[in-house]
Amino acid sequence: MDYQKILEDIYMEIQPYAGKGAQADYIPALAKVNPDQFGIALRTVSGDSYEYEKAQTRFSIQSISKVFALAMALSMRGEDLWKIVGKEPSGTAFNSLVQLEVEKGKPRNPFINAGAIVIADMLISELDDPDAAFLGFIRALSGTDTIDYNMEVAESEREKGYLNAAIANMLKYHGTIKNDIEDVLMFYFRMCSVEMSCTELAQALLAFTNCQPFDYAGFKLTSSQIKRLNAVMQTCGFYDEAGEFSYLVGLPGKSGVGGGIVAVYPMRYSVAVWSPRLNSKGNSIMGMKALELLTTYTQESIF
Amino acid sequence: MDYQKILEDIYMEIQPYAGKGAQADYIPALAKVNPDQFGIALRTVSGDSYEYEKAQTRFSIQSISKVFALAMALSMRGEDLWKIVGKEPSGTAFNSLVQLEVEKGKPRNPFINAGAIVIADMLISELDDPDAAFLGFIRALSGTDTIDYNMEVAESEREKGYLNAAIANMLKYHGTIKNDIEDVLMFYFRMCSVEMSCTELAQALLAFTNCQPFDYAGFKLTSSQIKRLNAVMQTCGFYDEAGEFSYLVGLPGKSGVGGGIVAVYPMRYSVAVWSPRLNSKGNSIMGMKALELLTTYTQESIF
Amino acid sequence: MDYQKILEDIYMEIQPYAGKGAQADYIPALAKVNPDQFGIALRTVSGDSYEYEKAQTRFSIQSISKVFALAMALSMRGEDLWKIVGKEPSGTAFNSLVQLEVEKGKPRNPFINAGAIVIADMLISELDDPDAAFLGFIRALSGTDTIDYNMEVAESEREKGYLNAAIANMLKYHGTIKNDIEDVLMFYFRMCSVEMSCTELAQALLAFTNCQPFDYAGFKLTSSQIKRLNAVMQTCGFYDEAGEFSYLVGLPGKSGVGGGIVAVYPMRYSVAVWSPRLNSKGNSIMGMKALELLTTYTQESIF
Amino acid sequence: MDYQKILEDIYMEIQPYAGKGAQADYIPALAKVNPDQFGIALRTVSGDSYEYEKAQTRFSIQSISKVFALAMALSMRGEDLWKIVGKEPSGTAFNSLVQLEVEKGKPRNPFINAGAIVIADMLISELDDPDAAFLGFIRALSGTDTIDYNMEVAESEREKGYLNAAIANMLKYHGTIKNDIEDVLMFYFRMCSVEMSCTELAQALLAFTNCQPFDYAGFKLTSSQIKRLNAVMQTCGFYDEAGEFSYLVGLPGKSGVGGGIVAVYPMRYSVAVWSPRLNSKGNSIMGMKALELLTTYTQESIF
Repeated sequence: MDYQKILEDIYMEIQPYAGKGAQADYIPALAKVNPDQFGIALRTVSGDSYEYEKAQTRFSIQSISKVFALAMALSMRGEDLWKIVGKEPSGTAFNSLVQLEVEKGKPRNPFINAGAIVIADMLISELDDPDAAFLGFIRALSGTDTIDYNMEVAESEREKGYLNAAIANMLKYHGTIKNDIEDVLMFYFRMCSVEMSCTELAQALLAFTNCQPFDYAGFKLTSSQIKRLNAVMQTCGFYDEAGEFSYLVGLPGKSGVGGGIVAVYPMRYSVAVWSPRLNSKGNSIMGMKALELLTTYTQESIF
Repeated sequence: MDYQKILEDIYMEIQPYAGKGAQADYIPALAKVNPDQFGIALRTVSGDSYEYEKAQTRFSIQSISKVFALAMALSMRGEDLWKIVGKEPSGTAFNSLVQLEVEKGKPRNPFINAGAIVIADMLISELDDPDAAFLGFIRALSGTDTIDYNMEVAESEREKGYLNAAIANMLKYHGTIKNDIEDVLMFYFRMCSVEMSCTELAQALLAFTNCQPFDYAGFKLTSSQIKRLNAVMQTCGFYDEAGEFSYLVGLPGKSGVGGGIVAVYPMRYSVAVWSPRLNSKGNSIMGMKALELLTTYTQESIF
Repeated sequence: MDYQKILEDIYMEIQPYAGKGAQADYIPALAKVNPDQFGIALRTVSGDSYEYEKAQTRFSIQSISKVFALAMALSMRGEDLWKIVGKEPSGTAFNSLVQLEVEKGKPRNPFINAGAIVIADMLISELDDPDAAFLGFIRALSGTDTIDYNMEVAESEREKGYLNAAIANMLKYHGTIKNDIEDVLMFYFRMCSVEMSCTELAQALLAFTNCQPFDYAGFKLTSSQIKRLNAVMQTCGFYDEAGEFSYLVGLPGKSGVGGGIVAVYPMRYSVAVWSPRLNSKGNSIMGMKALELLTTYTQESIF
Repeated sequence: MDYQKILEDIYMEIQPYAGKGAQADYIPALAKVNPDQFGIALRTVSGDSYEYEKAQTRFSIQSISKVFALAMALSMRGEDLWKIVGKEPSGTAFNSLVQLEVEKGKPRNPFINAGAIVIADMLISELDDPDAAFLGFIRALSGTDTIDYNMEVAESEREKGYLNAAIANMLKYHGTIKNDIEDVLMFYFRMCSVEMSCTELAQALLAFTNCQPFDYAGFKLTSSQIKRLNAVMQTCGFYDEAGEFSYLVGLPGKSGVGGGIVAVYPMRYSVAVWSPRLNSKGNSIMGMKALELLTTYTQESIF
């Protein structure tokens, strides 16, 4: 399969979507990114790599960080994790408090904000230095030592993060989180603030693609755990657009409001795409379209 | 892969779950089935077939019929179908009216009752003789001419079907269904009342497995449409246990309160399993466990 | 107090609201009423009566009938009634199914549709001839033998009554109603179809005003029961505008989509007002304003 | 009317309820109160005063403070206040976040926690020294200079106040509150921590009873404003038990989790009752019963 040509064809094909949608602008640090950028990178399990356009430009990975945090928590807590966070699609927007109130503080899944905040709380409980561990894990996964937090982004998000603070207080009220609310929120926002490029993300996701047991920076997952993490991405990775992404793209994936999307085709390839303009559900418009074309052109999806 | 041995091993392995759960008993016709039965059948795309225990005993397929009805509607309406029925997981029980009220009469997906009632309405609108067409389609898919409705079951379900009648009235109020409420409900219940065996279901599902364009009894689907139908099964096939099934089994599938479950492993095999005792979510306990073991033993799933 | 002059002044004062809002038009029989009519009638406990404009024109009392039905059910069932229907304000629109699903089929109060349908079911259970009894009761209360159903209205409402049919099916599903769904719905719609004038309504409500034990057509209420019925009107009589009416008018009252509103000032007077144009909540615009001015001009309200 | 005898009779009559229910114990300062106390005080508009048992024991007035805060805000903001806070009953528990999310940050009424937090925010915006003003107002109303905050209670409540913090963050997210979240919450909790006796509360509520225009510590309300404030108490003063209180007692009133309840019979009397053991809705069991008996024995209620 000539993946390089496919990536280039995709780029041509999605030009009509350029300029559609708007980038996240609720904090200045995100708003000042040039919204008209696009990058894509693909890594196969056999070791080949392809990329096009701004594949090496770093951006705020935001909610994509939830995949890494979940992997760490799963490694330490195992199946017990699911007693505290569900693994069902939410059926509602990523930041809904209604579900949390009705279900007495148990978040639907680890990829909505409430669930990710609980995962952050678990990491704080389990780890002496959660920041060092988190950065160590993603640096090991991507083979790049320079990946880091953007503290300006993290602090701005906390400052405006009233809804996440509401969620965290609600979780504390229900006893779902154990640590200090401020500590949990700041760690959550720091993880979201990590900056990576498509190339680095595709590399990092490769570990979830070949489904071999892994050990990165001491965090181990079995083959079965990796498959199950992929299954959760499939059903819950796109908030209330999970069905749409599954339908159009047919791969497990995770998006972030920075405009990035990662997806894995188990046993074949991982792919990361980035373009800051978002649709009304908070997912990258050109990114969604690019991945839809990828599975159409390659005639390959998990279904 | 020695599928026959795997099916037999699975049967041994799930014996501890025998007698757990209760069969559906809201209508006498379902309650009088011997609950302690189990059957399983598997068909590979290369033409091999395997089965074990009561694989040839027919049972009420109930909601599994929604897969066939959706295929027919998709064949006739194409992508326009999704303007009227969504394709997002519901996040709530299969019969929730709350979602329908909040979203002004648009059902979340075609596999919750509201969505399937809308699909039934579409088939009535599009077809001169919807009953003949529906039976013709599943007979063609399964290669068995004797498959038929169980009218006693259909009429009993209508008689006790207050909640589905509430849903149908709500849909009519919002203008989502076009035909007479009674006609739509009765057609819906007739489709649910179809009786098939695991062997017949596995054969019928094969058409969704090899992902080749098909034409059965005049209903045609493209390869892409089949894949997308599988994607909807993956995200929406198990009501509020969709994430759990995806996590444990890792295959697109659909369950029915008669105790049947079908699943497909695209490009590999289709499988049907049946055992009447259900968990609290309305899914077959031994069936769920059998499919979990199948993907564990074969080390194969879509993830 | 010169009530006659007050009624006339009110009529002048509310002219700026003439032509605002729209009458109920979901059935032809209601849509063909001339919307630009207004009538008001007031009866004091000391026996004086006042009226102005179209006070003697009959109109469809619609939900005002729920006050009479509740009085009858309370007379026969006593306090046990409240085990089946609540007496709390609903906080949502009059026809919401969400509350019914969440609270497992117990309607919030007897003045939302769900509650009134349950009251209709009780009357059918308790009475040999519920229609004769209902008409007998309101004829006795108002001292007018010619009050009757408008069967054209009742039948039209049933024909378009998908939402009420959804509610009735939901109630049947939860076991809250005992009789045949069609029988209950038709009786409910017949009660709503009754036609009375402001003069007749003011007279009928007098029995709830002086708070003396009463016996009309065999239906007896104690003084305490009457006061409590008034209390329910106060908190629940105006759907999701109950607080607004209480705030602006300060009297227990009940509205109907035919444009009528009744209110009682315990120990002083009953009042009925009618004008078909409704606000977005389904309450008569000129009627609401007229009653607000009545308590302002008289400087009298229960608060 | 021999109110003194009635108060004494009531006390005898409610003895069977002694020991039923449990006092609020979510903070140590509330839990350490002897729960088996009861006090009642009544003041007539003609100047007579009656009291029985522990009528002079001070207790934490908690949500009763919301009446005073609303009076102050209404005095300064007038009718504009209702653009930001509704005046409809909530239909749900006092601390529900669901309503707030669905209605985009506008609290249903000023007596649920969300609404009271918004009122606290308004007072901070309008007043140079909101604490001095609040204490000044209630000291003037009750004619007692020693009324004060209990800072230990206020601080304990903030410490455990996760749910109120969730609400405040949600309000900030929707832009409903303007000031710093911590400042608003602490002021809210300080107001709740005020300690008063039944005697003092009955005196303070007298201003809302005779419905004469008033001016206390510079806060002025017209007769119409007072009546309307009473109307809001009637429909919203008891959370999801507003209908029950209206039905059983028939007076506008407000309860607090400290076990206090105040009620007014416009133009007749104000009454305050206190007993710490609460029912499942958070209202004083003996207090509710005492007030029900008061209107039964006097044969007087607003209905």
